[in-house]
Amino acid sequence: MNLLRKLSCAILATAAFTTLAQTQTQPAKYNELYYQRASIFDELGVDSTSIVMLGNSLTHGCEWHELFGMPNVLNRGINGDVIAGIRERIGSIVAGRPAKIFLLAGANDVSHDLSADSIATALGELVDYIRQTTPDTKLYVQSMLPINNSFGRYKLMAGKEDTIRRINSLIEPMVKAKGATWINIHPAFCDAEGNLRSDLTNDGLHLLGPGYLIWRDQLLPYIKE
Amino acid sequence: MNLLRKLSCAILATAAFTTLAQTQTQPAKYNELYYQRASIFDELGVDSTSIVMLGNSLTHGCEWHELFGMPNVLNRGINGDVIAGIRERIGSIVAGRPAKIFLLAGANDVSHDLSADSIATALGELVDYIRQTTPDTKLYVQSMLPINNSFGRYKLMAGKEDTIRRINSLIEPMVKAKGATWINIHPAFCDAEGNLRSDLTNDGLHLLGPGYLIWRDQLLPYIKE
Repeated sequence: MNLLRKLSCAILATAAFTTLAQTQTQPAKYNELYYQRASIFDELGVDSTSIVMLGNSLTHGCEWHELFGMPNVLNRGINGDVIAGIRERIGSIVAGRPAKIFLLAGANDVSHDLSADSIATALGELVDYIRQTTPDTKLYVQSMLPINNSFGRYKLMAGKEDTIRRINSLIEPMVKAKGATWINIHPAFCDAEGNLRSDLTNDGLHLLGPGYLIWRDQLLPYIKE
Repeated sequence: MNLLRKLSCAILATAAFTTLAQTQTQPAKYNELYYQRASIFDELGVDSTSIVMLGNSLTHGCEWHELFGMPNVLNRGINGDVIAGIRERIGSIVAGRPAKIFLLAGANDVSHDLSADSIATALGELVDYIRQTTPDTKLYVQSMLPINNSFGRYKLMAGKEDTIRRINSLIEPMVKAKGATWINIHPAFCDAEGNLRSDLTNDGLHLLGPGYLIWRDQLLPYIKE
């Protein structure tokens, strides 16, 4: 028993040292903002009443607790984040066993030229991880939003409209099969050509205020259920 | 009376048209994120119970309502914003006559090579505008934070440590003279040389989670009063 305790202490000490060393050397895998936000999220934590908005710049951009008028709706978005980045920082979120997680990811993976299949696979692994580590959390996976390349702002998104549609078609059955809830918000933002409505954006990728009102209306039944 | 009503309608219609035209042409004075966030803030609004955190990336980075455990603490920060930008978007904030505004601005003005005197003057004009348009709002002006150029990340901030100290020394008496509350948070973040503590940042300008805990402790007496 004494030996077991000593072993536990040694393991814990090693883990603490590893974390400290990682903090001090700051791995350059993601940008500075990623580590700033992730470390803030670690301090703030999450609890069983939390409804977590999880994702990239689209999630980061909004003041969700104000949009829904609910203080337990938490912003866990990071501008520029990718699926692997979300996976790496999700520890402090799943540890809190939140009531609900609303996930929307993939745009930056698309801009990094990953294939629809590899993005769908990565998203599936993230869904599996969340489901396994916090099975009582209700997990909602949102479809990727349309983009509008007529703005010419994001060269890395040029011609990627079909990649996004393909990702959505791949992840819908997968998400359902894994026991998460699929929310197809994509159509609500589309113009007649299936692109992001130009009145909802000023860069073809991100949303202006009225776009977030549409998003709110799409999610409200799931937030309230 | 009829003439007056017609005149009012004409003025309102002109104002509405001007706003619409501005929205449609998207002035390129600030970046896309500025207009995205500003339009979200316009949708969300502010009311007389609100405590508004107003500023640039330092304010934008945190989830303030979680940090203080108070749903009425609102994030009105925009990454990259300057004093003139805050002035231009402040309409929807002062219109709500919030209970308190906590202002921290100036870092991007410094990076744009504006002089300490011109930055202090611009801040003074912003303070005047807030005081005049919403006199019952309690206005708190925070000192600029220290920076740490040993990170070498922000070339435009190189050698600007003294500019920041000079701005703080200029705005302290000015803020007090204008009837706002001065909060000198600068010392709480300094190392022995007066630079931003390197354990609180990963880029010499922005804060990691533990930095926001210090900031919270600095503001808590004023949030609660």
